[in-house]
Amino acid sequence: MKSYDESIQILKSVAPKWKAIEHIALTNALGKILASDIIAQTPYPAYPTSSMDGYAIKFSNQNSKIKVINLAKAGDNDDINIGENECVKTLTGALVCDGADTIVPIENIKFDGEYIEIIKPVPQGFAIRAVGESYQALDVILRAGDRLGYCELALLAELGHSYVNVLVAPRVAILSTGSEILDIGQNKEHKAQIYSSNSISISSLVRDMGCEPIIMPIIKDDKEAIKNALFNALNSADFIITTGGVSVGDFDFMKEIAREAKIIIDGVAIKPGRHIKVAKINDKFIFALPGFAYSAIVTCVLFFKEFIEQIFGVNTTNKFKAILKDDYIKRSPFEEFSAATITNENGTLLISTKSKKIGSSAIIGNLSNGAVLMRVPSHKDGLKASEVVEYIKI
Amino acid sequence: MKSYDESIQILKSVAPKWKAIEHIALTNALGKILASDIIAQTPYPAYPTSSMDGYAIKFSNQNSKIKVINLAKAGDNDDINIGENECVKTLTGALVCDGADTIVPIENIKFDGEYIEIIKPVPQGFAIRAVGESYQALDVILRAGDRLGYCELALLAELGHSYVNVLVAPRVAILSTGSEILDIGQNKEHKAQIYSSNSISISSLVRDMGCEPIIMPIIKDDKEAIKNALFNALNSADFIITTGGVSVGDFDFMKEIAREAKIIIDGVAIKPGRHIKVAKINDKFIFALPGFAYSAIVTCVLFFKEFIEQIFGVNTTNKFKAILKDDYIKRSPFEEFSAATITNENGTLLISTKSKKIGSSAIIGNLSNGAVLMRVPSHKDGLKASEVVEYIKI
Repeated sequence: MKSYDESIQILKSVAPKWKAIEHIALTNALGKILASDIIAQTPYPAYPTSSMDGYAIKFSNQNSKIKVINLAKAGDNDDINIGENECVKTLTGALVCDGADTIVPIENIKFDGEYIEIIKPVPQGFAIRAVGESYQALDVILRAGDRLGYCELALLAELGHSYVNVLVAPRVAILSTGSEILDIGQNKEHKAQIYSSNSISISSLVRDMGCEPIIMPIIKDDKEAIKNALFNALNSADFIITTGGVSVGDFDFMKEIAREAKIIIDGVAIKPGRHIKVAKINDKFIFALPGFAYSAIVTCVLFFKEFIEQIFGVNTTNKFKAILKDDYIKRSPFEEFSAATITNENGTLLISTKSKKIGSSAIIGNLSNGAVLMRVPSHKDGLKASEVVEYIKI
Repeated sequence: MKSYDESIQILKSVAPKWKAIEHIALTNALGKILASDIIAQTPYPAYPTSSMDGYAIKFSNQNSKIKVINLAKAGDNDDINIGENECVKTLTGALVCDGADTIVPIENIKFDGEYIEIIKPVPQGFAIRAVGESYQALDVILRAGDRLGYCELALLAELGHSYVNVLVAPRVAILSTGSEILDIGQNKEHKAQIYSSNSISISSLVRDMGCEPIIMPIIKDDKEAIKNALFNALNSADFIITTGGVSVGDFDFMKEIAREAKIIIDGVAIKPGRHIKVAKINDKFIFALPGFAYSAIVTCVLFFKEFIEQIFGVNTTNKFKAILKDDYIKRSPFEEFSAATITNENGTLLISTKSKKIGSSAIIGNLSNGAVLMRVPSHKDGLKASEVVEYIKI
């Protein structure tokens, strides 16, 4: 079996660039992925602007009595020019008049109704937002692949964009299989039935990644039924994630689905999830994840998230380092991804698996409270307290 | 002026508990706040279940030839009982038959068509998910105030919930004021006009906090217009956030809006945002934030987020520690919240403000790339490299 890193390299090498772009209102764009670079056309601010309530003066006049000749409020568009020993009362956000190079805050002056006298001098240029303070013309403000958060949207608004080009969310069909599984909302008929959590956990994860999940009806462990569900999913979605189907991803089975089917990943030397399979049919990919809830979540993050971020061109990482708090004993010959807790002790990140229940790969609760996945290399028997280890944020 | 901590204490002491609850489908609940504790009614799993493909045996028979008397697949509900030297082939997820206490994986046996022989023994109880492995009856699985992420939703599904009680998202009216400000999508008419980013940044922030933002039309710096906009906002929203309005939050002005108006916060000794005001009219709160983009975002996080998490009963924190990388020189006599970058160096979090532009509180770009706010106490002149400092995640 291939290692995780080898498998991801293969997966990324065949991942197509996602090219579907839509033009949407800024107010609908939170969380979307930017489709093209955003470049400033003009400096910002474009004109010197006051950052405080004060008086716009010539710095060289600071020791004289200065006559107040006008008032400038934010939004005022009067062309005002000051001469020697003249100033303009200038409120926050107002353009600075011609001839002035410094703002003296209102707290620093005495005003006699006509003239100001400066009690507390300020350095030249004080309280003036210089042209280009925020950015210059031709600065690259945002890049294709950036996820639009509050700050990126604010920059787009400031630049005057009211609509923006973003990637269309790929549709991801989520297909849980298993004869024991009940759909959300169904009644239990006998003791061998359980409620599957995979539809809701995987759909939530892919929505957070920037995809549009389509939850398909549950399919019993029946090859024909699974085949029909896959045909249906191939028609209605860009990518397919299955959980628990033993035959999905097998070479012979996939060839029955489509002659063009190629197996990209066929098992990986990891725990949990070593039976994971990824198949490709034209530009559509099928990720066959394990059925146990914990394994399905972990492999969705380890494989599907890496795939989606590759096709989107996202550059951020979800891999970080922390210091192991307690010894960790490995329970398999594979590379392990173990649920762990991070605590921040005075700036040092400590990672521990002690609060997690030991048991099968079905314990979802191990992933609550912002759990991360600690990576344990296959060639080690375990890890020692105070070692630096890698972890993955979910 | 009061300190930040004092102000937050006052704000929290008057914050009402948010009691509006709705019953929504699990598939619509991502990111919502749970309204009541969720308690397991039965252990999970409720019956011993196989976690691997194998043979269910009596552990004491491990050295004998054992007869395969049946097959159990996931979802099968047959009452099977094994006697001495009998076993049942049991696939992953299937109930374990009565009389068996151990699963021997298929890789560990030889099968002659009728009997198995165990090549590689396993400990007693191997590969069996014991009753209650995930949780016991009456365990508290989730608590009121928990934010529903992929893991919390998966737990609800597993427990059999198809609908869930969550807090109704409060409506937050966002009202940007300023004669210089253009609405998103408006054409610029002269050089003193700028596009405001506050509507989009504040609406994105409050949406992430679990509120429903209502972006109001831009209001010019005109008391009557602002008064009318506030009346309108009081009718249509639960809370109001204004940016840039100089009179909003002033005692006299607020008394004109409503006789019941109380001023809760009237300036705080912080930079940026020392002019922040919070007023209360019955159970509605008005947060008057500064107009500059950076200051508006910072004060929204410092005050409105604390307020919302208090009324929701959210228990998580967004305050962490890091080690300062470079000396920091304070530029005001106030407590400062300075945009900073965090890097993770082998598990140590280093914080630095060096990559941030020095200038006014209008530079939004300083908040990009996941910036945090470094807290600099008012009584210090600055901070020294390698000090442990507190930071706030936005």
